[in-house]
Amino acid sequence: MTMPSDSHTTGRDPRHDVLFEPVQIGPVTARNRFYQVPHCTGFGVEKPWTQAAFRGTKAEGGWAVVSTEYCSISAESDESPYVSARLWDDEDAAALRLMTDEAHRHGALAAVELWHGGSHAEQRESRLPPLAPSQIANEHVGVLVPKAMTIADIERTQEDWVRAAVRARDAGFDIVYVYGAHTYLPTQFLSPRTNHRTDRYGGSFANRARFWLETIERVKAAIGDRCAIAVRIAADTLEGAGVEPDEGIAFVRLADPHVDLWDVTAGGLAGIERVDSGPSRFFPEGHQRQLTGWIRAATKKPVVGTGRYTDPDRMAADVASGVIDMIGAARPSIADPFLPRKIEEGRYGDVRECIGCNACYSRSIWGRHLGCTQNATAGEEHRRGWHPERFTPVADTDRDVLVVGAGPAGLECAIVLARRGFRRVHLVTADGDVGGSLRWIPKLPGLGEWGRLVDWRKGQLAALRRQVEVHTRSALTAEDVLAYGAQIVVLATGSRWAADGTNGLTSGPLPGVEHVRSLTPEQLMVNGAMIEPGEAVTVLDCEGYFVGPGIAERLALGGCQTTLMTPYSPVAPWCDQTLEGPRLRARLAAVGVVVAEGRMPADAREVVADVVVLATQRLSNDALGLELAGRATAWAAAGLDLVVSAGDCVAPRLIADAIFDGHRVGREIDAGDPSRALPYRRERPLVG
Amino acid sequence: MTMPSDSHTTGRDPRHDVLFEPVQIGPVTARNRFYQVPHCTGFGVEKPWTQAAFRGTKAEGGWAVVSTEYCSISAESDESPYVSARLWDDEDAAALRLMTDEAHRHGALAAVELWHGGSHAEQRESRLPPLAPSQIANEHVGVLVPKAMTIADIERTQEDWVRAAVRARDAGFDIVYVYGAHTYLPTQFLSPRTNHRTDRYGGSFANRARFWLETIERVKAAIGDRCAIAVRIAADTLEGAGVEPDEGIAFVRLADPHVDLWDVTAGGLAGIERVDSGPSRFFPEGHQRQLTGWIRAATKKPVVGTGRYTDPDRMAADVASGVIDMIGAARPSIADPFLPRKIEEGRYGDVRECIGCNACYSRSIWGRHLGCTQNATAGEEHRRGWHPERFTPVADTDRDVLVVGAGPAGLECAIVLARRGFRRVHLVTADGDVGGSLRWIPKLPGLGEWGRLVDWRKGQLAALRRQVEVHTRSALTAEDVLAYGAQIVVLATGSRWAADGTNGLTSGPLPGVEHVRSLTPEQLMVNGAMIEPGEAVTVLDCEGYFVGPGIAERLALGGCQTTLMTPYSPVAPWCDQTLEGPRLRARLAAVGVVVAEGRMPADAREVVADVVVLATQRLSNDALGLELAGRATAWAAAGLDLVVSAGDCVAPRLIADAIFDGHRVGREIDAGDPSRALPYRRERPLVG
Repeated sequence: MTMPSDSHTTGRDPRHDVLFEPVQIGPVTARNRFYQVPHCTGFGVEKPWTQAAFRGTKAEGGWAVVSTEYCSISAESDESPYVSARLWDDEDAAALRLMTDEAHRHGALAAVELWHGGSHAEQRESRLPPLAPSQIANEHVGVLVPKAMTIADIERTQEDWVRAAVRARDAGFDIVYVYGAHTYLPTQFLSPRTNHRTDRYGGSFANRARFWLETIERVKAAIGDRCAIAVRIAADTLEGAGVEPDEGIAFVRLADPHVDLWDVTAGGLAGIERVDSGPSRFFPEGHQRQLTGWIRAATKKPVVGTGRYTDPDRMAADVASGVIDMIGAARPSIADPFLPRKIEEGRYGDVRECIGCNACYSRSIWGRHLGCTQNATAGEEHRRGWHPERFTPVADTDRDVLVVGAGPAGLECAIVLARRGFRRVHLVTADGDVGGSLRWIPKLPGLGEWGRLVDWRKGQLAALRRQVEVHTRSALTAEDVLAYGAQIVVLATGSRWAADGTNGLTSGPLPGVEHVRSLTPEQLMVNGAMIEPGEAVTVLDCEGYFVGPGIAERLALGGCQTTLMTPYSPVAPWCDQTLEGPRLRARLAAVGVVVAEGRMPADAREVVADVVVLATQRLSNDALGLELAGRATAWAAAGLDLVVSAGDCVAPRLIADAIFDGHRVGREIDAGDPSRALPYRRERPLVG
Repeated sequence: MTMPSDSHTTGRDPRHDVLFEPVQIGPVTARNRFYQVPHCTGFGVEKPWTQAAFRGTKAEGGWAVVSTEYCSISAESDESPYVSARLWDDEDAAALRLMTDEAHRHGALAAVELWHGGSHAEQRESRLPPLAPSQIANEHVGVLVPKAMTIADIERTQEDWVRAAVRARDAGFDIVYVYGAHTYLPTQFLSPRTNHRTDRYGGSFANRARFWLETIERVKAAIGDRCAIAVRIAADTLEGAGVEPDEGIAFVRLADPHVDLWDVTAGGLAGIERVDSGPSRFFPEGHQRQLTGWIRAATKKPVVGTGRYTDPDRMAADVASGVIDMIGAARPSIADPFLPRKIEEGRYGDVRECIGCNACYSRSIWGRHLGCTQNATAGEEHRRGWHPERFTPVADTDRDVLVVGAGPAGLECAIVLARRGFRRVHLVTADGDVGGSLRWIPKLPGLGEWGRLVDWRKGQLAALRRQVEVHTRSALTAEDVLAYGAQIVVLATGSRWAADGTNGLTSGPLPGVEHVRSLTPEQLMVNGAMIEPGEAVTVLDCEGYFVGPGIAERLALGGCQTTLMTPYSPVAPWCDQTLEGPRLRARLAAVGVVVAEGRMPADAREVVADVVVLATQRLSNDALGLELAGRATAWAAAGLDLVVSAGDCVAPRLIADAIFDGHRVGREIDAGDPSRALPYRRERPLVG
């Protein structure tokens, strides 16, 4: 019992037809040019059903290829405590068969990114030594020192790669990677920086290339009749990792006869020169084009390139120019698994474009369960049974639903309620426009693309205008709500930054705030500039994410003498989970923000500044909810059946989680008490 | 087919009889006073079979009570990405039933530490808001802001606690906790610092105590007839967390009628005032006695106290004094699951005493699979089938085994080989004594207890002297090894600190080292002082663990002008995984070490100092192994069947992993090629 999106289909622009041409990849054929490249999820070996549903949904949405994340070939490449896929044994293969079946059911090819981490694998589970061409410590984790591989180690590793490839083929994969990008083992051999060997696997380019080349050849010989062989390579390893473009291109030429598809990235694993998965704060769409474009000259095989592509004109232009043959996407495929199908059908306005915030990355590597700011259903396909485009109709569509507040949670909830068939949804906000905190967050330096969160939802509301009425500049009291005539009320009144400096370190308001000139981020951004150029401003950031640094950067750019004070060291630790940290700190220095890290005043008067901006913590706008709860006896007379709160007005949270909660309340509005989330399916070892 | 330890049993000292008296705990009886308190493992909900075997082994070793780690009562207390046990549903209960069955099979009681994290639960999996008495951000993770609990939330949470308790009872648990220490939810209510409520759950002491007290009462009412109710409480929350001893004692008096056992800790979760799981570097055995001792005055119920107890005299004295009734232990029970039985049987010398390094903690919270430096079998009971005291006999005991090198790996391997029945094990070292790097590491400031690693193994070797010959000051060449007459050779020749400054950041030797006066840690510690007081010394630490800071502290104490330079920021990041970081940094400052963090010279001549100590990375002593491999054609003539390397000579690693590898090679010496670890059993969602 589901219903499709009711968006109007107009047919696509013929300019985009090129994107829907099939592509021959060795022995297999992709139905179009949309290629979901390998990306981390936190699912891997631990959540095979989640993996299958997540990738399968993209297959259903029109991607021609869906890939796993990095998939370890043996216990000698053990990525724990991070989560990877694995093909160590037949049980691993059976688990991944769930995914290939889902891909095939929807007409997509399934790809597996076979991987050996070399000196980067922490081996926390297996307790085996990491392997590398030479015994040089891991540059990020100094206690990790690899074994310098013997010839027997090299041969065994290549055999393991072949064994995993055969398992992959038998599990139904169509494309099998010999993955070497991100400075993993094959690049560790190719790079003279990490390969100091003096045998036939070190020294000359031919020797350094030998390990990777032989591995590709062996895998090709073993399964190349049935599966396409893909190689992921960093066009430039950057970071002084040692493989300059001249040797990169030489390797492509050398290996090309054995390779069916090149998947091109740039850069390494970490640090300021990591450009892969570049956040929108620093990298525009298509940003890797220049770094990866030269690969074309070295091969006639299909080339996959990424760069947060969501604009079909740009995709078509890059394909037409010949730079790439397939539109690689990780994040855009998370934000909208149906991106290809929507373009195919000309439903351009329905494409939910990635905002480049990298919440997905933070939730896969650190959080162990991928989620997405734009797409509340990402990672929830199996465990909550959510489909990004289909919604279970409510039994009774004829009730009035009032949604109070039109920030991330309220906007999302109203859309979900309409998709579920409610005919009269009233979305009411006291503000002059919808968006809540997203009215001002995209104005912070670098965060313009985050505005897509509101743009897309405004577009959806326009399409749903027969079901959703939007009322702005309408502040509602509890009395107003009771008088509104709705049977269901969703409160999504959001949160505000604490004007009294409430924070978790002094565990309450910041003493002395009443004696200093202070502002909250919202007061500064919404109510207009109240700080003059030249004034000394200290931004006190106890949150450790984007708001404090964003405000500081904006003030510095506006001519203030700006200090960013924070109890954390380094600044904005959460930004390290989103790959924004190193560049963010460099950016602060570049615009002249003075950083006072590891510092927390016990009293606001300790801060020497004309103005203190208090980015200490947010507080829920829960007054309306509490007042309504206090008048519960009046609900029945008012015809009110249900009042439920969603998002920040329950507890302030990341935007991704606010949208998630608005979505969840919409999905569960008719499931008992929607203030309590329904249980979700868990994947765990079964007993008995 | 196993054989017991051949240690001689003499019978225990009557002074220790008190430790073997049974203790009545509400409706259940502990057979003695040895109580394995709850502690993290990384097993929890993810590895029920590992959990069962791990706790069951302790039960077999004589512990009267074995407990789970923290066990979440509902999805509203979701500890992901860390691993906890869970009792959210019946499937969780079935998983934990494996553990209670194992405990009972060995005559122990099973305890479950029911837990709600409040504002500390990151909720990464469930995506639900954390709950807390008041809306104050998490002090460690600023983006985490809880929901201020409503009365309905409080009631529901208490119901969840009861529901989990009933599930626990039905799963066979004998002791059920209403856990409130470590500043989790009950303490968040009790503390005026985190509880700013104005209703009947906040304000006065009685109001702040209400949540916890009611929860205890409800759980007692639900299951108190069958199960003992235990409460874990921080005698002093320290860290300004807000519950001073006067209110702590008041709470104990208040709740005492409903509580069957008090499990007493001190301090909170993090920071310099964390004293629980105190590393031996800073805390002696029994160190919590003073902090927790006053609880006795408030209750006649059994009191459990911890403090890394391994000395039976001290245990007996503390019990006799009445301060505690039961010897609580986490780490000592990991280092020796058979500690009670060994004391019971008077096998004092066989007790493998915890060294207080906290590798266990680092591997449970960060590494997700507990391991132990002293006890290589910890966490391996299920997945590798290793029992700490039983060893599968080898089929042919009549072969000579030569173990070259008597550091952590070689010592451990020789002991395991003897336990497996080999009659002629030759343990040969070029050094003047056994121990390898452990001859000098315990001389670093604060690391004296780490000497127990060698002491215990020396004791075992003495007991096994009819099977193991130890030869010191015997450097062996490849020729010597071939001439030795052994059929099996284990190379455990260890590693050395790179004299040329090889490191992962410059990815090779440190340029310019030949132009400065430099020493390695070993040269300094083993060869004797070559640095005079007053000299300016810079220790360059690229490893980020204990050696660099230990050397620096030692030099500063010896009167040198000492700088610790490291690319990391903060210093010694690995020490944060072992709970040593904050105090270590304070200690360095206190002894006058100048810290230059986030600094890495491109050339040794950039370092301004009289001497540079190069703690950059270690290199394997693999020359002998390579030479023997090169002469493989000569093995047969020499009667040599097998040469295998173990530990650091394969790749330098943590001491825990070196001992593990020596142990593994001993266990697997007759399993094909022991240089490759046998596969281990994995726990994962089963498919199909």
